[in-house]
Amino acid sequence: MRELELPALTHSALSDRLIALRDEHQRLKGQGLRLDLTRGKPSPEQLTLSQPLLGMPGADGHTAQDGTDCRNYGGLQGLPELRATFSGPLQVPAEQLVAFGNSSLELMYECLVDAVLFGVPGSSAPWPREGRTAVLCPVPGYDRHFAICEKLGLDMIPVPMTETGPDMDEVERLVADEWVKAIWCVPKYSNPTAVTFSAETVRRLAAMETAAPDFRVFWDNAYAVHGVADADEPLLDILGLSTEHGHPDRVFVFGSTSKITAAGSGVAFFGSSPANVSWLLGHFAKRTIGPDKVNQLRHARFLPDAPAVAAHMERHAALLRPKFELIDTVLEKRLGGTGVASWTRPRGGYFVSLDVLDGCAARVVELAGEAGIALTPAGATFPHGKDPRDRNIRLAPSYPDLDELRDALEGLVLCVELAAVERLLAASDGTG
Amino acid sequence: MRELELPALTHSALSDRLIALRDEHQRLKGQGLRLDLTRGKPSPEQLTLSQPLLGMPGADGHTAQDGTDCRNYGGLQGLPELRATFSGPLQVPAEQLVAFGNSSLELMYECLVDAVLFGVPGSSAPWPREGRTAVLCPVPGYDRHFAICEKLGLDMIPVPMTETGPDMDEVERLVADEWVKAIWCVPKYSNPTAVTFSAETVRRLAAMETAAPDFRVFWDNAYAVHGVADADEPLLDILGLSTEHGHPDRVFVFGSTSKITAAGSGVAFFGSSPANVSWLLGHFAKRTIGPDKVNQLRHARFLPDAPAVAAHMERHAALLRPKFELIDTVLEKRLGGTGVASWTRPRGGYFVSLDVLDGCAARVVELAGEAGIALTPAGATFPHGKDPRDRNIRLAPSYPDLDELRDALEGLVLCVELAAVERLLAASDGTG
Repeated sequence: MRELELPALTHSALSDRLIALRDEHQRLKGQGLRLDLTRGKPSPEQLTLSQPLLGMPGADGHTAQDGTDCRNYGGLQGLPELRATFSGPLQVPAEQLVAFGNSSLELMYECLVDAVLFGVPGSSAPWPREGRTAVLCPVPGYDRHFAICEKLGLDMIPVPMTETGPDMDEVERLVADEWVKAIWCVPKYSNPTAVTFSAETVRRLAAMETAAPDFRVFWDNAYAVHGVADADEPLLDILGLSTEHGHPDRVFVFGSTSKITAAGSGVAFFGSSPANVSWLLGHFAKRTIGPDKVNQLRHARFLPDAPAVAAHMERHAALLRPKFELIDTVLEKRLGGTGVASWTRPRGGYFVSLDVLDGCAARVVELAGEAGIALTPAGATFPHGKDPRDRNIRLAPSYPDLDELRDALEGLVLCVELAAVERLLAASDGTG
Repeated sequence: MRELELPALTHSALSDRLIALRDEHQRLKGQGLRLDLTRGKPSPEQLTLSQPLLGMPGADGHTAQDGTDCRNYGGLQGLPELRATFSGPLQVPAEQLVAFGNSSLELMYECLVDAVLFGVPGSSAPWPREGRTAVLCPVPGYDRHFAICEKLGLDMIPVPMTETGPDMDEVERLVADEWVKAIWCVPKYSNPTAVTFSAETVRRLAAMETAAPDFRVFWDNAYAVHGVADADEPLLDILGLSTEHGHPDRVFVFGSTSKITAAGSGVAFFGSSPANVSWLLGHFAKRTIGPDKVNQLRHARFLPDAPAVAAHMERHAALLRPKFELIDTVLEKRLGGTGVASWTRPRGGYFVSLDVLDGCAARVVELAGEAGIALTPAGATFPHGKDPRDRNIRLAPSYPDLDELRDALEGLVLCVELAAVERLLAASDGTG
């Protein structure tokens, strides 16, 4: 711990510090690093945990438990045995679960496209575009969610994330507007803040009255089984709760095995009420003859039940845990007590959310980039890429190995401090 | 050959014939058949030709030729080595080919959805819906093409199929209307008439002037390598020809391995101009992190080049050829010379197109259904399922084995004759 936080330093002390930090940054640039903390990609070691999939189904044949020849056309809802495995982890009855392609993002995209082309069950018309449909976006959040809204011309209303999930007072206030049609949620080990929604948050999302009769919760449960701590964080069953509260069609649940088996070759899931499932499959029936059932069979054999999934995820956790610990160690060592940075200590998921001094995130990303350390663009965790306080940076530690990660983090913390000192000096010069 | 065609029979002869045919139909119903000629599904024997895929990539690893780890995210355009294999068969340069999911229908659907949401390169606005965009539909054609148009609210204008492809005089007349934005084509061994477009047809499609600057040919080359005769029917390269004629963005080429490897677990392709490829991938970038590259790797290793594809398709042809021959034999034996049926003798593809007496197709399908023989619904090969002459039936012989196929066909020819006699009698009674 330092004697003084950086913001408390005198102008002269900051000036001295700036010179030292710039020297250090110059040396960092000279190292020719090529490191990448941008995306939540599994590491090769994680992917290798699912190596048996690469030879499956092999000699074990191509027949599903119900006798389906998985090689042929058909079976829009996906293999029952795979849906049974993921019913528990995703908290959706197997008969209300759809196992589809290799991408849950694609399923979310299709749901929104179908909403704007046709409306959802309960809609009196297609969802209007170009600013007349609004989607609530807890921030910081997942850039790809926001990119879909932007592409489809849907307005985004940021809602602050708290320690217990989105600010529910704000959510309940906003859904009184009939143009507010949806909310994005990553309810467990959230991207990027690693928050798991509290029981009260989930209950309020399930129970709240919305002006729009066709309001939808996009429940992207991407990290449902992705704990890294000793104890898993519990999440309430929003689909069941919504039904209990008289809103059976409120929730679209999404999930996938992308960060369980192979990132590009996994299986994605959609779960919802029977009416919503019929709605989606009705659209899919015009779009495709069915998903890749052989890949679903591979997954069903590799992960025959929920305990098999849990055991497999333990092995992922063993690989990810040291990376999260390393981030905390390196950040604490240099930035602890400086008053210019705070960060999350995730108990699951894929990301650490780092808040630097207001107005400094873009500069940190720039300084790191000059030194060969690629970070997620500043602002990416906000709609339209605009962080109003320019302070949030998402760190994705899964892909690099521990040595690379340490090098990247040691460069990063320097850049955080340098950007802060630049900013504080400019402020004390009256130019900030 | 009969002495007299059925339409030339007297009322009395027809009445006698009706009694005999109804008896025969009654006996057919008593057999309790459960046969299905509805969909172009590969048979288990055909699927088994690709059995090695089920154990791939196995111990051969997960690394593409360019070093890509196929298990991880990324690579929106698909594996270069697989695109190289299918570049020749699909007549698209590999760098202008996209290898995507498991369904070319999905790619067609996405192209039309993106056209109505955003427009295509050359559009001044999104394609209007609800009858203000028209798509030319050569008939008889593929029901799933028409179903997409119907779903998206696009008008369909039928154009007769001839022995050389769509009636090009009619096509050229219709594209003078700026609301005519597209044409569906299955250019080789067409669904269901098995016509391969002539050189002149392809040239005229490539060269014609269209009022819409953003007109598109949806070139569904589903049967590009699916000949069953000794000599393959040649098809001109429409993408190259369109470019030569100053319409580089005119053509969207589609294809897939669904009827080459595994029907539900193959790889689909989109090929077009660089501008169109960028357009589609730009949309896909918001929708997914990328296709299943492990499945693409499997396919690239199983089918390393175009000659490997050709050799593999020879084995398919050996299984399909006897089925096409059997259809011709059974139909000729009972319906030859009756004057109430004509049918195609395919040199490739998956279907036989059967024309029965005008006004009889729905009745034939009904009579066959009563006897446990499922046929594609009458009218399915026309927009909105309405065959104005109620005469076309699509036969899909690939799935059943030869014995089942013979049983189904022998039932079918009876139903064709029975429906014709009913119709002729009604006409001679003045009630037709």
